[in-house]
Amino acid sequence: MGFREGMGFSEEQVIEVLAEVFSAADPRLILGIGDDAALVRGGGQQILTTDVAVEGIHFRSDWSTAFEIGRRVAAANIADVLSMNGKCDYLLVAATLTGDESLDWIRDLARGIQHEAERAQAIVVGGDLARSNTLSIAITAVGSTTNPITRSGAQPGDCIYLSSLTGWSAAGLSMMLKEKNFSEKAIARYKVPELDYDVDFSAATSLSDVSDAVLVQGRQMAKASGVAFLLDLALIQKADGFDELKILAEKMGENVLDWILQGGEDHVLLATGQNLSGIAIGQVGEGAGISVLHNNQEIKMAPVSWSHFQKD
Amino acid sequence: MGFREGMGFSEEQVIEVLAEVFSAADPRLILGIGDDAALVRGGGQQILTTDVAVEGIHFRSDWSTAFEIGRRVAAANIADVLSMNGKCDYLLVAATLTGDESLDWIRDLARGIQHEAERAQAIVVGGDLARSNTLSIAITAVGSTTNPITRSGAQPGDCIYLSSLTGWSAAGLSMMLKEKNFSEKAIARYKVPELDYDVDFSAATSLSDVSDAVLVQGRQMAKASGVAFLLDLALIQKADGFDELKILAEKMGENVLDWILQGGEDHVLLATGQNLSGIAIGQVGEGAGISVLHNNQEIKMAPVSWSHFQKD
Repeated sequence: MGFREGMGFSEEQVIEVLAEVFSAADPRLILGIGDDAALVRGGGQQILTTDVAVEGIHFRSDWSTAFEIGRRVAAANIADVLSMNGKCDYLLVAATLTGDESLDWIRDLARGIQHEAERAQAIVVGGDLARSNTLSIAITAVGSTTNPITRSGAQPGDCIYLSSLTGWSAAGLSMMLKEKNFSEKAIARYKVPELDYDVDFSAATSLSDVSDAVLVQGRQMAKASGVAFLLDLALIQKADGFDELKILAEKMGENVLDWILQGGEDHVLLATGQNLSGIAIGQVGEGAGISVLHNNQEIKMAPVSWSHFQKD
Repeated sequence: MGFREGMGFSEEQVIEVLAEVFSAADPRLILGIGDDAALVRGGGQQILTTDVAVEGIHFRSDWSTAFEIGRRVAAANIADVLSMNGKCDYLLVAATLTGDESLDWIRDLARGIQHEAERAQAIVVGGDLARSNTLSIAITAVGSTTNPITRSGAQPGDCIYLSSLTGWSAAGLSMMLKEKNFSEKAIARYKVPELDYDVDFSAATSLSDVSDAVLVQGRQMAKASGVAFLLDLALIQKADGFDELKILAEKMGENVLDWILQGGEDHVLLATGQNLSGIAIGQVGEGAGISVLHNNQEIKMAPVSWSHFQKD
């Protein structure tokens, strides 16, 4: 509703493009785009989550292509399903457009969403478009699981794991802000987080995705579980990719630990448990809160300041 | 994500308010607001739909209270579930706020959504907030049905029904625009559509809700079904409330048929079938398109011009 005059194309044209990009033949889908709502096969335990991303806050269309923005917003949403030990089944997209977007731009945005949906084996089953002064994209994910893992099951004695090293997105953002290109990988990760679809954390005792920062989600998990999270610098320094990131941080005159522990939007998984795959970064103890240890001494970290573009 | 500094209150305060307003003890809800995502009991056949409403396009916060806006946006969304002959189970809300909203305003918005959710016996299970220059509210509804009814099953010989008379929302909008208050009911209906939760259209052959206009959704249903919709003025004139609406239209110097057939956002149900309850307004015939007949002569209607605030 509400998508009308003033664009260089009709609502029907947009819907046609979107129906083409999002066309799916999947046994789960009973009725796709075109009626009042989509009709799908449900499941036993379902995961429901929604996220809204706003131009200038969560993405910048002068920095990223529409395809990248679509992937990024979809990935951030799908990550919330993975973080419950779920599989993403369906996506719905509600976007507000300013009227400055071309039909090609909208198609590329849809393709980016569709690309990430396919990686997750999810189907885009519905959406809505409206006019606004501000470009925004709200995505809702519907997932399923037979074994939901929340933030609240961490036990003293568990190890703490990352599905892959955080910090790449913060590194990329820093380079974009300072107009440096020291690492294509970092910039790519900032533009589109790389979800760890293949990491198996199904035996984890608690699980979340790192949307804000390891220190933020770690603190939330510690609080929800009634335990302390003790991160170990020696373990973090041994992680795959740490050295590469450290060299980049030095080039940028920044602190690699800020990137890894306080950087946001990597959307990798943070888990606790025993003998999990992934990168061990610490241990769960009795107590409360989160701390970073170096030779059993606590390192003082600056307060987490990650807040998208407001960082600098 | 992305809800930070610059409001007069913290993200935690908002989440606390929302968790309170949306608190639910319901056997369908396994895990509510507070983790990465909600966890719910699924169903066999599910209905998924999303709608986004934008300040200035779909609602005006200088005309409506936050409570009314919340109800309105939720109702528009829930109507899409009813229009598949479904029951709404879950709602997710993704809102972009400008920073001018007080915590009380946000609470009232949430209460409006919650109020409509309760009427529908649905649970608000999740949400997201972000900052933007434009206030917008995207709602996703998850419903279930054992007998989905689409737009495409209308048969020649069926009657055409409305669950209640359309036109009240258009009448209310017209009064708001012209600053006349001839009818509290019309203004109330414009601000909050009144969904026909109790009308039983489970035996309908095709079904939709009137979000744009009877002529728009009727045409879509006729096309989807491969039939013609023949609306009968004599039947419409006999409908409950027609006379009241006609008097109002005369006072406003407008055409009552424009309100009833071309007015949008009533979100009543439009159905086809045999011996249904509701208001009979016409018949399904062989052919294509939608026409309005008076003594078997077609009445020419102006092209449908309903487009929210762009109407005048």
